[in-house]
Amino acid sequence: MPQSLDEIRYELALANRMLAHEGVLDAFGHVSVRHPDDQGRYLLSRSRAPELVEPSDILEFTLDSEPLMPPTARLYGERVIHGEIYKARPDVTAVCHHHAPAIMPYCVAGEDVVPIYHLGAVIGVKAPFWDQRHDFGDTNLLVIKPAEGASLAKALGPHWVVVMRRHGATVAGRNLREAVFRSVYSCRNAEYLTQAKSLGTPSPLNRTEAERAADYNLAPGPVGRAWEYWAMRLEKKGEAPPRAAKSAARGAARKSARPAARSKPSARGAKKAARKGRR
Amino acid sequence: MPQSLDEIRYELALANRMLAHEGVLDAFGHVSVRHPDDQGRYLLSRSRAPELVEPSDILEFTLDSEPLMPPTARLYGERVIHGEIYKARPDVTAVCHHHAPAIMPYCVAGEDVVPIYHLGAVIGVKAPFWDQRHDFGDTNLLVIKPAEGASLAKALGPHWVVVMRRHGATVAGRNLREAVFRSVYSCRNAEYLTQAKSLGTPSPLNRTEAERAADYNLAPGPVGRAWEYWAMRLEKKGEAPPRAAKSAARGAARKSARPAARSKPSARGAKKAARKGRR
Amino acid sequence: MPQSLDEIRYELALANRMLAHEGVLDAFGHVSVRHPDDQGRYLLSRSRAPELVEPSDILEFTLDSEPLMPPTARLYGERVIHGEIYKARPDVTAVCHHHAPAIMPYCVAGEDVVPIYHLGAVIGVKAPFWDQRHDFGDTNLLVIKPAEGASLAKALGPHWVVVMRRHGATVAGRNLREAVFRSVYSCRNAEYLTQAKSLGTPSPLNRTEAERAADYNLAPGPVGRAWEYWAMRLEKKGEAPPRAAKSAARGAARKSARPAARSKPSARGAKKAARKGRR
Amino acid sequence: MPQSLDEIRYELALANRMLAHEGVLDAFGHVSVRHPDDQGRYLLSRSRAPELVEPSDILEFTLDSEPLMPPTARLYGERVIHGEIYKARPDVTAVCHHHAPAIMPYCVAGEDVVPIYHLGAVIGVKAPFWDQRHDFGDTNLLVIKPAEGASLAKALGPHWVVVMRRHGATVAGRNLREAVFRSVYSCRNAEYLTQAKSLGTPSPLNRTEAERAADYNLAPGPVGRAWEYWAMRLEKKGEAPPRAAKSAARGAARKSARPAARSKPSARGAKKAARKGRR
Repeated sequence: MPQSLDEIRYELALANRMLAHEGVLDAFGHVSVRHPDDQGRYLLSRSRAPELVEPSDILEFTLDSEPLMPPTARLYGERVIHGEIYKARPDVTAVCHHHAPAIMPYCVAGEDVVPIYHLGAVIGVKAPFWDQRHDFGDTNLLVIKPAEGASLAKALGPHWVVVMRRHGATVAGRNLREAVFRSVYSCRNAEYLTQAKSLGTPSPLNRTEAERAADYNLAPGPVGRAWEYWAMRLEKKGEAPPRAAKSAARGAARKSARPAARSKPSARGAKKAARKGRR
Repeated sequence: MPQSLDEIRYELALANRMLAHEGVLDAFGHVSVRHPDDQGRYLLSRSRAPELVEPSDILEFTLDSEPLMPPTARLYGERVIHGEIYKARPDVTAVCHHHAPAIMPYCVAGEDVVPIYHLGAVIGVKAPFWDQRHDFGDTNLLVIKPAEGASLAKALGPHWVVVMRRHGATVAGRNLREAVFRSVYSCRNAEYLTQAKSLGTPSPLNRTEAERAADYNLAPGPVGRAWEYWAMRLEKKGEAPPRAAKSAARGAARKSARPAARSKPSARGAKKAARKGRR
Repeated sequence: MPQSLDEIRYELALANRMLAHEGVLDAFGHVSVRHPDDQGRYLLSRSRAPELVEPSDILEFTLDSEPLMPPTARLYGERVIHGEIYKARPDVTAVCHHHAPAIMPYCVAGEDVVPIYHLGAVIGVKAPFWDQRHDFGDTNLLVIKPAEGASLAKALGPHWVVVMRRHGATVAGRNLREAVFRSVYSCRNAEYLTQAKSLGTPSPLNRTEAERAADYNLAPGPVGRAWEYWAMRLEKKGEAPPRAAKSAARGAARKSARPAARSKPSARGAKKAARKGRR
Repeated sequence: MPQSLDEIRYELALANRMLAHEGVLDAFGHVSVRHPDDQGRYLLSRSRAPELVEPSDILEFTLDSEPLMPPTARLYGERVIHGEIYKARPDVTAVCHHHAPAIMPYCVAGEDVVPIYHLGAVIGVKAPFWDQRHDFGDTNLLVIKPAEGASLAKALGPHWVVVMRRHGATVAGRNLREAVFRSVYSCRNAEYLTQAKSLGTPSPLNRTEAERAADYNLAPGPVGRAWEYWAMRLEKKGEAPPRAAKSAARGAARKSARPAARSKPSARGAKKAARKGRR
């Protein structure tokens, strides 16, 4: 079911606001999605706090992170994070870069963020740690030059979360909802890990547990349930993104914004789902 | 004072939202109640985030966790938690399964959640720890098969709270309000325990303290007072569940949703209560 | 400037809601004030969560904690805390009993709550620890019998805050605003102390610091400034107590509820205050 | 682009409210700005909680912290903090004094607040610790006499943040937005440092990292983006300061309060900014 570009812009603005509302993003950080029709482009907001992003703020970039149109507004300096990961990882369709409070202590102390509970399994078996001093020596700690983005993408490797020394984290997903889900639950995992370390010596999920729990939790059921929840929390506060002005665009956007619609599949589908036992 | 099924559906939706609002549930977790007229059935929402549950989402299940009617919507995968506990514990009328931040560090570190203050006494003398590896080896950490639910119910035994390795907790109650009260205050207890451990070496309530304080706090007075409070907090934010459309149902629902009504007993009852000294 | 009983009822309802809103009280806990015209009576709400208390919920009690009028509603079981402290301490005009999250770890770990910063000085030089086992052995941990209240009052002695083993704290004040101010800032002090202990070995204020800082901060300027702030936060959220129906009462209540009025003294008074340098 | 005094009053009221909303200020603390036309004066609110400050509350003071006009309201007792820093530091145009929860444990434990991540670099290489006992022995811990303010200014020296024993912190900026940005992100830095210390042994940014990251983050792009975000958060909650009554003032204030306006520079400026790669 292909989505129109308007739908995708709306969902991306929604994802930005969700992640701000759930405590992953604040004034800084950003989320992008690969262009649905062109593997060589991606969509990202102009430079503004994620909580404020509107569909009309979303611009198109090449994988070299050059804007397709001459920009009429300031751009994020760290957009190479997105472009370089899309280059290195054809399987990645969405990227979130953040400095969430839950993760920062790990960026600073250099301790590993390891998955420790069923939903934390979405981190994957391992979240590598990127220390840009290895490639660049003393820097401003940011990721602005293409080479810096490429170094980060290399550190990410085949994984889904990379922790960045003294900076934050970058999270990838096979689709936008997965990237949002992984961003939120890797933060929750880090919070519980920090507290568990004050209580005892927690051990990470083993490979089997991590893979099986990730498979289960990244299925459309759990991811869609969380997406509906986060979307409704924004909606109830009047903080969902504004609809586009065009009536056609509005209809499309509304459709994609009503996640409840997809939680009522046909009776046949539901029975099958019930049998398969989606949580 | 028997409640109608409509009243019970309303209260169960309310309980879901309360527990979300008080920080026990998020996108995941669920609360159920046993059918008032049939010990062999229970009521539980279709699969959606607890904060969004409406009375019309509540479905009926057999104790084998099969839906009574062909479902037209996705179901929770972990509903066997509820069914198997109702099978094993005829005295249990309500069950809450959650992954509250307060409890997760204990699930992960494997430290015991012990009652340490008067309201924490509602946990009971002991909260057993369930490690599903004993029965099933490496899993996806969830509770989906009937055998998994039965293993959990066995671990719960005669207690009221069972902590689940790398997953969360499940809480039982003799009625819905008690299950909600126990869920909230076992979380508060865990939070204070975590902090107390950073300050010194807290010791748990002894058996006499735990039993006497639980008896006091689980009486209708304290439980009703907290229930009114949590309900009004939702009401003030416009987050109480919607009333059912049917006028009869609406009247019933309203009655059960106005806890203030029950906090103004007759003068005679009040005097007696005053003499007995309910806090 | 004597206040009418209606004004006092309004302020007491306001104090209950403030303390709930600032995180000191939740479903439980209560605040009282001594009767302005009769040292042998005090005012306290009927049993309900502090956030919900209305002026019309406020009842009168003797110092033996018996209601003056036959109650038409459930009463707090722990009201002897208030009565026995008023008996033992003629200088006390307001009492708050709470189980704030900031304090609970100290109730449980048995570590002393000591003042560690200028606003924390309002605790006083010492906050005694009450362990009811000394007088009563194993109990339900509550304070319901007059002898229990008297034992607590004795432990409080000439101090202003008493920490109660496995239960909470009780805070006294020379007036209602002082009791509220002390309740809030003793909690903040405890929070910072807990964190400071994780960083190093904090030492308490010495007697001179504690006394001088308390003198400064308990003056009408700082206390009134905080009172206005907490009242306006409730007002902005629409959570201030409802006005009484009687027009006379309403006028009085409005006057006492507009703290801004008192923060604009005459030019002469202000100049004097400016010279004295109230923060 | 010089601002009118009305604009500055509006921005200062906004800054007060922002810092309250972002958790830096509560009932206490204050922000000031130097007079735009007279290096020998500064602007500061009358004594009230920062969250409540309105443009009409802003008064003018000499660098000896005397009000220019006879005050008609109570004044902050600690205004010498501002005056003495403006005297000692001609490069400073804005000052914030606060007791943020993030900083207090450091004031109490005496541990250094060191920059540990890219945004924390705005603290500067070093945040000195001021212990007023060295100059004054046992005090009420406040900063009320000119000599106390001068001692604090001396401790600040050429730095931007000074941590005050058992009291709080004072933050300086080359302009108001920088002072606000530094106040917020020095608090975030302290929070992450506290948690990182519980995980391991975090090391501070080295001088090169601290200087380069501060240069980047204190540029108009990042500071403006955060300012827009904090302003919109207030706006969405209806908590922005009221506009002045005068129509001229209103126009001016609106202009300065709509940060979105400045985030849409001309296409030419934007393209240049894009090339320079502001994050």
